[in-house]
Amino acid sequence: MSEVYAARRERLRERCTAGGSATALVTRPANVRYLAGAAPRGAVLLLGRGEDLLLCAGPPAEEAGAGRPDEALRVQALSGPGGDPAVAAADVATAQGADSLAVEEHHLTVTRHRAIGSVAPRLRLSDLGAAVEQLRVIKDEEEISCLRIGAEIADQALGELLESILVGRTERHLALELERRLVDHGADGPAFATSVGTGPNSGRCGHRPTDRRVEEGDFLSVCLGATYRGYRCEVGRTFVIGTSPADWQIALYDLVFAAQRAGREALVPGVAYRDVDRAARQVLDSAGYAEALPSLTGHGVGLEIDEDPQLAPAAMGKLDACVPVTVEPGVHLPGRGGVRIDDTLVVRPEADGGPELLTITTKELLAL
Amino acid sequence: MSEVYAARRERLRERCTAGGSATALVTRPANVRYLAGAAPRGAVLLLGRGEDLLLCAGPPAEEAGAGRPDEALRVQALSGPGGDPAVAAADVATAQGADSLAVEEHHLTVTRHRAIGSVAPRLRLSDLGAAVEQLRVIKDEEEISCLRIGAEIADQALGELLESILVGRTERHLALELERRLVDHGADGPAFATSVGTGPNSGRCGHRPTDRRVEEGDFLSVCLGATYRGYRCEVGRTFVIGTSPADWQIALYDLVFAAQRAGREALVPGVAYRDVDRAARQVLDSAGYAEALPSLTGHGVGLEIDEDPQLAPAAMGKLDACVPVTVEPGVHLPGRGGVRIDDTLVVRPEADGGPELLTITTKELLAL
Repeated sequence: MSEVYAARRERLRERCTAGGSATALVTRPANVRYLAGAAPRGAVLLLGRGEDLLLCAGPPAEEAGAGRPDEALRVQALSGPGGDPAVAAADVATAQGADSLAVEEHHLTVTRHRAIGSVAPRLRLSDLGAAVEQLRVIKDEEEISCLRIGAEIADQALGELLESILVGRTERHLALELERRLVDHGADGPAFATSVGTGPNSGRCGHRPTDRRVEEGDFLSVCLGATYRGYRCEVGRTFVIGTSPADWQIALYDLVFAAQRAGREALVPGVAYRDVDRAARQVLDSAGYAEALPSLTGHGVGLEIDEDPQLAPAAMGKLDACVPVTVEPGVHLPGRGGVRIDDTLVVRPEADGGPELLTITTKELLAL
Repeated sequence: MSEVYAARRERLRERCTAGGSATALVTRPANVRYLAGAAPRGAVLLLGRGEDLLLCAGPPAEEAGAGRPDEALRVQALSGPGGDPAVAAADVATAQGADSLAVEEHHLTVTRHRAIGSVAPRLRLSDLGAAVEQLRVIKDEEEISCLRIGAEIADQALGELLESILVGRTERHLALELERRLVDHGADGPAFATSVGTGPNSGRCGHRPTDRRVEEGDFLSVCLGATYRGYRCEVGRTFVIGTSPADWQIALYDLVFAAQRAGREALVPGVAYRDVDRAARQVLDSAGYAEALPSLTGHGVGLEIDEDPQLAPAAMGKLDACVPVTVEPGVHLPGRGGVRIDDTLVVRPEADGGPELLTITTKELLAL
């Protein structure tokens, strides 16, 4: 694995050099992990002149799924308490003879940025921008394999829940139960706060579970994901409680299903992000739900659950092969509830069989 | 409750005016909640000229324990997706005729700060600093009551765990079980990631649960807390697994217990933060554990789990009445394990009975 991290750092170094700064300071935790193999709490990565350095706030602690720092990397822990590794890194950069330092301005606070500037007044601070986030968009097969295992775990947890009795249980209990099952099946933990919505709460994007209990006739929407070796996936399904769904429920489900399928089928290398969004969105638009739609119909996943790209109307850019994304259109009708269907897929060329579906839980409308 | 929030905003406004800026932008979520009653995702609070305004990224969603915005406050949601409420707030401040705006430089990223500057070039941006965090240090009885209920919930969850069979279960499962029980008993959720450490992991501050199983003869350290109406408390205990603790375990436990008691007894209004720390620390120091000690022996709690003050050797300032703090010394011996004992208490004058212990789980060394 060491070569992987070294190669990632090398690619970043090339970008930095092209951008006019040979030295860079990476502070955003997911970016540090991507380049260093691990991101102990507060750790920063200095891409230095000659030598790279992982600076930690204290001795790194063992943590489930947290990874280990690349062995080819020098790791140094601050000795005293309360120090900022980013400030210490600027000091090291100066000592190495650097005259400029690219920092992640979208992550550093104004206060930290100023502290770096005052400890290293001769360093010209520039903006690294989203350079590391851009490197992270296309995944290697090792990364995709972690996502695939995470998706299997999420599918298992969801499948087991569906076999249990649901009526009378609260959204919060169902969410906790799902999170326990994720860990049972080997996840580092949930990829994000598990969402369970029943009745009028169903179909709401990012709904936080409440004490509402599942009732006969409800829609039940569940959205969960597992983190496996740092990689986060997402699956979302909507079910109906009781023996026979109402007509409006079947109609709404079929519509969202058609929109989600259109989005999935649009996933080919080279397609514009906005065209994937449009494929899903226009199915719902033309049925008169334009107002009820969320601002995006999917997004990248990886070391964070909400990565580039965004599949949204105003997004600029095109999908590449080996980019994992969610496709998750939904409709929520205030007071009545709604439907969301959410998969994680990897963009693949048609010659390789087209988009690879990672989350394989059925998308039939199950009556539970 | 509305008057409470209005009074808090008035106090902040006085500080701002004294600091030269009549208009302030609060972005840190816990600070927004403190002043506005709720902090929907991405929401910011503009303390404006005449009118205050809570600006949200979208329509606020119902969420367990998230609170409701103060009804006396104007609430406005951005209409389009992807906008930054902080930038929109700067626009509003300009329209209100403000010439300066105090912002939270310790929370805003460089990128957001620059976006505010460019949308409102005529506003002079200054630093609000930790003004809101300072207001939050002393709690009112309503806030303390939320902490008290949270502590009861955490005590209950811990008590139930102790009645179950522990040997053979993993740290991760025990942690999940505790978090489920917190919610069972009415918590909004855990106050922080529950820490369970067994054997060589016991006694480590902030230890993240692993797949290690509880064995006979282990120390078992547990640290958990409940969030109740947004307020977060903390309790930590160490137990021994099996019928009879080893001599070294009893000796280490007694020592940490003595240190923790010394810290608790030092909690009187007017005492210097560092003197509370020293009271606990010197017990461990004089037993030869100076190296094994964490950088602080306690901290404030409230809307965040790690608030001002810090009870640490270099901390400046004195405790007031009605400040809730943790007292949590511990010793961890690499390879062997260790002991942590952690309570949440409220500083009270001696005439009112001295420090109020919120977390009442026994601190006897229990053999489980």
